[in-house]
Amino acid sequence: MTSDVKYRVAVIGGTGPQGKGLGYRFAQGGHTVVLGSRAAEKGEAVAAEVREKLAGAAGAGEVSGASNADAVEQCDVVLLAVPYDGHDELVASLPLAGKTVISCVNPLAFDKRGAHGKIINNGEGSAAESAQELAPEATVVGAFHNVSAVGLWEEPGLLDEDVIVVGDVVEAKEVAMNLAASVTGRVGIDGGKLRLARQLEPFTAVLISINRKYKVHSGLRITGLSPDASH
Amino acid sequence: MTSDVKYRVAVIGGTGPQGKGLGYRFAQGGHTVVLGSRAAEKGEAVAAEVREKLAGAAGAGEVSGASNADAVEQCDVVLLAVPYDGHDELVASLPLAGKTVISCVNPLAFDKRGAHGKIINNGEGSAAESAQELAPEATVVGAFHNVSAVGLWEEPGLLDEDVIVVGDVVEAKEVAMNLAASVTGRVGIDGGKLRLARQLEPFTAVLISINRKYKVHSGLRITGLSPDASH
Repeated sequence: MTSDVKYRVAVIGGTGPQGKGLGYRFAQGGHTVVLGSRAAEKGEAVAAEVREKLAGAAGAGEVSGASNADAVEQCDVVLLAVPYDGHDELVASLPLAGKTVISCVNPLAFDKRGAHGKIINNGEGSAAESAQELAPEATVVGAFHNVSAVGLWEEPGLLDEDVIVVGDVVEAKEVAMNLAASVTGRVGIDGGKLRLARQLEPFTAVLISINRKYKVHSGLRITGLSPDASH
Repeated sequence: MTSDVKYRVAVIGGTGPQGKGLGYRFAQGGHTVVLGSRAAEKGEAVAAEVREKLAGAAGAGEVSGASNADAVEQCDVVLLAVPYDGHDELVASLPLAGKTVISCVNPLAFDKRGAHGKIINNGEGSAAESAQELAPEATVVGAFHNVSAVGLWEEPGLLDEDVIVVGDVVEAKEVAMNLAASVTGRVGIDGGKLRLARQLEPFTAVLISINRKYKVHSGLRITGLSPDASH
């Protein structure tokens, strides 16, 4: 089941691989996308690249570029697709009050033993929860953590993955669940409360390990959900 | 690809739903299983229940019951399928030196907002890592965390899930990966180093949330792995 609701989505970090890839997919699904960057010109340059890739796609939404703050001002939905380094300062600087904010930020660390989750607030935190604390008048959900940037940009069709969405406000989760249909062809899965972002974010380290071992772009699917269910 | 290697597996916590279910599946796959319990008679009673369920299954392995310590003595492979409460004391009490130890222990906490991961060692630990510290002469891997006990016991066929295995010793991971074929029909997936058990264990909280929301028994699959790969 997919949804016909169309959103205006500001992608913060819209020039990075995850933000650009998700912005491309959202526009392909008919949503309006504003790719934000520290420099508006950089956002506009990547928007032109995305428009070029979309050329000819029926029903695609408009894609433009802007500074991060301007992108937020133009949209009701904000996707945070930034590196965890500098995340807190950037989030605190944005005019997020009243917005539905989707965090796909993965706080990961890398050493010679590979990728692993960064410890946030002694294990009792996540990037998504930090964003909610820094923007208390926004509604933050977590989603799209485990979707491969390479797949988003290079895979010709929908991705054989599921998008799990966590959050404390059902209506905000539904926005991310609907947007997921642009990526996977199915609405996302309600994975529970926002604090479970602690589990979704570092799970990406497991997928990175699998990718390295098997030379693949792995993804996550949830089995056992009936096709007749609301999912 | 499945493996023809057969193991002797001691299931610690073999009378609980996860241990009983995995023991049943391992025996169905031709492995010898000793269900351990605090009281040998309890282990033997559940072994009789498993044997009854297996009756007629071609190629099934033998199933017996024993005290936890006796079960370990009789086997080279030990599955820890115990609740996290009391886990450390139990592990420290077992003669695990030289054994391949598979931990499927999920340190979870529950409150009115649902299931979530228990914080271990300020976020820098997991049940599997604790077991390795407590049994330094054993080789501990993590696996089978996310497999539904209900599915293991009640689902008539193989489960549509993947078993992700983490550990620091390849040969020990291979044991769990081979055992996984009894559950899913496919060898398990090498998910990286043992410390990534920090990610696998609490992910079960996400599946529990999904189960509650959608009234299903959800599982996890990894997509993107070629059927021609070693997996």
